[in-house]
This record gives sequence, C-alpha cells and structure tokens, in this order.
Amino acid sequence: MSKKIKLGIVGYGNLGKGAVKAIKETRDMELVAIFTRRDPKDLDMNEPNVKAVHISDAVDYKDKIDVMLLCGGSATDLPEQTPHFASMFNTVDSYDTHAKIPEFYQSVHEAASKNNTTAIISVGWDPGLFSINRVMAESVLPNGETYTFWGKGLSQGHSDAVRRVEGVKNGVQYTIPAEDAIEKVRSGQNPELTTAEKHRRVCYIVPEEGADKAEIENTIKTMPNYFADYDTEVNFITEEELNRDHSKAPHGGFVIRGGNTGEDNKQIYEFSLKLDSNPEFTSSVLVAYARAAYRLSNEKQFGAKTVYDVAPGHISERSAEELRRDYL
Amino acid sequence: MSKKIKLGIVGYGNLGKGAVKAIKETRDMELVAIFTRRDPKDLDMNEPNVKAVHISDAVDYKDKIDVMLLCGGSATDLPEQTPHFASMFNTVDSYDTHAKIPEFYQSVHEAASKNNTTAIISVGWDPGLFSINRVMAESVLPNGETYTFWGKGLSQGHSDAVRRVEGVKNGVQYTIPAEDAIEKVRSGQNPELTTAEKHRRVCYIVPEEGADKAEIENTIKTMPNYFADYDTEVNFITEEELNRDHSKAPHGGFVIRGGNTGEDNKQIYEFSLKLDSNPEFTSSVLVAYARAAYRLSNEKQFGAKTVYDVAPGHISERSAEELRRDYL
Repeated sequence: MSKKIKLGIVGYGNLGKGAVKAIKETRDMELVAIFTRRDPKDLDMNEPNVKAVHISDAVDYKDKIDVMLLCGGSATDLPEQTPHFASMFNTVDSYDTHAKIPEFYQSVHEAASKNNTTAIISVGWDPGLFSINRVMAESVLPNGETYTFWGKGLSQGHSDAVRRVEGVKNGVQYTIPAEDAIEKVRSGQNPELTTAEKHRRVCYIVPEEGADKAEIENTIKTMPNYFADYDTEVNFITEEELNRDHSKAPHGGFVIRGGNTGEDNKQIYEFSLKLDSNPEFTSSVLVAYARAAYRLSNEKQFGAKTVYDVAPGHISERSAEELRRDYL
Repeated sequence: MSKKIKLGIVGYGNLGKGAVKAIKETRDMELVAIFTRRDPKDLDMNEPNVKAVHISDAVDYKDKIDVMLLCGGSATDLPEQTPHFASMFNTVDSYDTHAKIPEFYQSVHEAASKNNTTAIISVGWDPGLFSINRVMAESVLPNGETYTFWGKGLSQGHSDAVRRVEGVKNGVQYTIPAEDAIEKVRSGQNPELTTAEKHRRVCYIVPEEGADKAEIENTIKTMPNYFADYDTEVNFITEEELNRDHSKAPHGGFVIRGGNTGEDNKQIYEFSLKLDSNPEFTSSVLVAYARAAYRLSNEKQFGAKTVYDVAPGHISERSAEELRRDYL
C-alpha cells in the first residue's frame, strides 16, 4: 500500500464537517488535524485520531500535511486565509464570489508561486463542476447557448452573506429555478432569459431582538453580487421555526447547452446535480481535488490553479492504466 | 489574430463530413486537406479552399498540418491508421472498441512517443465525455454506483459492425434504454441491473441478394464486444425502407451516479446528451480535442493521451484568464 495523502482542514463549520466525512470515504487520504480559530479544546469533533489545533500553530505542520482544505467562507475568510496558507501548504478552497475571482486568483497565485505550492481555487460544484461543464459544452458546441439554473436549494454562500448583515441573528436563503424556463431550454429553443426570469431568491431571517427589519430587508435586497440583480423575497421567522423547517441543506441545479451543428441539427448537452446535502457534496469535491493538488505539486506545477487546469484523471484514485481499461 | 491551428481529416465518411462542418464553427482552426483512400478527384466535397489528397501522399503534409483528425472506423481502420499517422502528425481519433483500448493505446503510444507527437485516442462522447463523467462522478462520490444508459439512438460503431457482416448490403442499429431502469437509478435506489436489463439492441438489415438471412442473424447476435452480451433483435428490410425510415443518425444517453455522503444523504450526479446527429456531435468533440492535441504537443507532452489526461481549459478556444473571469 502506497503512502496516504495527508490532509488538514482549516475551519470546522458545515464544510469542514463535511470534509471529515468525505475523507473517510477515500482509501488513499487521511486527516491529520483540524485548524480552528476557536479554542481547540472546545471543538466537539469526536474523532480520536484527529488533532484539533489552533490556527496560529499551523506552521508547525508544514512537513506533516500534504494538502490543506480551506473550509472558511468566501465573504471574509478565504480572501485572507488562502494566500496565507498557500504560502506554506498546497491548498484547495471553495471561493465562490464569482465577480471577484480574478483578483482572488492573483493574490493566491503570487503567494503560491513564490513558495512553490499548488493552490486550487474555487472548487466545488458552482464554481467547480458546473464551471467545467459550461466550458466543455461551449467548446464542443461553439454555435449555441448555455444556461445555468440553480436549485431548488439552500445556498451556503448566500446564507452566509445574509447572516453577516447587521441585525440578523440567523437565516437561510433558497434559490428556486423556474420550471417553464428549464423546459424551454431543454427543447433546444435557446430562449433569451434574464437571470430574474430563471430564478427567484427566498430568504428566511431570524432578526436580533429590536433589529430594524426594514433596514435588514433593504440591505439584503441591495447587496451587490449576491442579491441586487435578483427578484429577492425576505421573510422574518423565529429561531424555532428556522430549526424546525430549515435545518437541511439540499441543493442542486442544471447546466444545459442547446447547440446546433451542420444543417440545423439540435444537440442538447445537460449536466445536473440533485443533492440532499450541499456542504457534504461540496466538501466531497474539495477532497477529490486535494488529490489533484498533491499530484500537481509533485509535478512541480506550482501557483494558483482552477478546475480548468486539472485533467479528470488527476482527481481519481485509480491509475491511468486502470482508467483506460475500465472507465474509458 | 494569432495563427490558426491547421487541421487535416483522414477519411470522408459521416464522421469526416461532420468534422468539415465542425471546423467551420471554430474561429481558431482551419481545414487544409482531406485524405482519402479513394481517387481524390471522386471526392464530392464542394469545399473550394480544401484539397482532396490521396492518403498515401499524407507524408508531404508533415509541415503543413498541426493535427490530423482520424475519422475512420474502429473495427479495421483505426488500429492500423492511428499508429501510422501518429508517427508523422499529432492526431485525434474516436476509437471506440472499449475492450481493446489498452492494446490500441499501447501501439499508438509507442508510435507517438518515438516520433514526438501527441495522439489523443478514443475521443467523442462514449468513449469521451461519458468516460470523463464516469470518473469524475466516482471521484467526488466514492460511495455509490454509476450507470451508463445509451439511446434511443443509432450507434455508428455498431452499425459499422453489422455492415461488415458477410451478406449484409446495408443496415443500422438502434440502442434503446429501459425507461423504468433510468427512473430507479435517478431515485437513488442504486439497483442491480444487468446490461440486458438496461438496454436492447435493434438492427435493421438490408441483405444482399441471395444472402443467408439466418446466417447473418446468427453472426450479428454472436459478435463479441458488440452484440453477444445483449438482447439483440435483427429485422430484415429493403433498401427503400432503410432510406425512408432510417436516414437520420440521432443518439444520446445518460451517465448517472447515485452516491451517499455522511449519514445517508443521497447525492445524484447526472450527465446526458440528446443528439439529432451523432456523427456531427462526435466530430465536434474531435475538433475541440484537436485544440488540446495542438497545445499538449507545444508543451512537449508527447505520446498517446486520453480524455483523462486533458484539462478542460485545454479544449477551449478562450484564454485561462477569460475562463476564470467569465466561466468559473
């Protein structure tokens, strides 16, 4: 048995917890430690073979960890944490603020290139698997139109964003696709659809006591990148209702391209996910790409990378020979 | 405008004709010549800027063509043609006899490695895009089951195979998936299904005059790799019926993986294609991967490659920067 790939996890929220479970499903990777900003003694993780370590002591693990999974949020954690950790470790993160990816990439690329590490950014399903399918669909069908639909589902990134709004105690956000729009796209009509025609965003917010609800609603509805361009609905509920009705994190979506070849032959390319648990799936993708980060680093392909730079065989546990024989 | 990638096509059947159309949809590639075993004067291609050249003169184009698209059949053409052309050119082919891929790979790899060319083998949708999805789905959801369904559609490889049977004048083969099996898989039940429970194979054969129909039927039904393991139906029709009812080449199919993460959360991963024209789509994939063959060759990554070795960004016309900004 060859040496296992040694992983660390930074951040023990939903994504970090999902990563712990996902690593257990692999045969070629093992978890060494979880790094937290909290007091490590307070981490209730029930994993006897895994250390809980304060985030400031991560530097001591430089030679003990092959790839660090960065499981913080995109709004404030990752813009700081990814360049920091990429200066010491190979990393994988799920940075998902689409509009700011170029500047995020740049700061990570500088840190990783200078320190000979490999940092795969924006991994998960969107950005991630959906991104791959948008590009592959367009590359094989240049004459056509690509559509991305999300949901119905709870969006981690958007829920994170509403919870950071002043006066919000807790909250969740669901993205809901428009069924009639999906059917039009599947039929190959290539309709023109605004983002608002494709989805709605629905928030359930638990306000802090005495908070200004109108102000919360306005802040959410005008938040750039996340909500400003969407038809957004904000509902206020109690903590009890939130726990009772909104404790699961389902999600999913569709990437569909309708393309034409030759004399008007319609070709429909579709990729979809239907997920009971968004954070567990996202962290499963992170763990698979940790394998690629490890291999790229061994090949001295340093710097920031995205899913576009990773060949499919690099995320598989299996050898190239096995893939050709049994999967091609 | 940077230099266009110069392509050649070997073989002017359905796939070669599709490739001519697919190249026209790209902005960064151009077709230089079509190579044929027939008399080049007899090639009715109606393309004033494209030369028709006898296949034996291909060597004269070594410095004029960046990538050769090999559009012959898998049964007898490609096992001979790919190693031959890979000794002179970068190549892309659609070799699709799954069971013989390892030995095909080996012979192509030797020719390409020795001559510093890049040969991407078994490109298309299955093998090809479906292969990629089988591996990615398993890599992100190690605990689960993957299912491939084909059809309803006319299979080029299988139609090619029936037409090579002695006594067959012409013929087509349709693959038909079992709807109830698909629904079971989509529900996340991960049922056990034999190949015969997932599909049927239906052939429409025009026999040569005086041919032994029972012998034809037996030869088809017992053909290894192609038909022996399937529930196969053989129908005999006239040439007139074939032209009237079976002149289109639709196809498609599904790769679905039902996976579990954490405490029994079901995660459904699905990729599907619905194609009006199978050869036009397959050749569109070949053309996209010609871009990758050209780039890998420039990076001195010589030898035989498969879709597992090609990063998604390498098949896109767009720059890495553009992909990160607009597609991630």
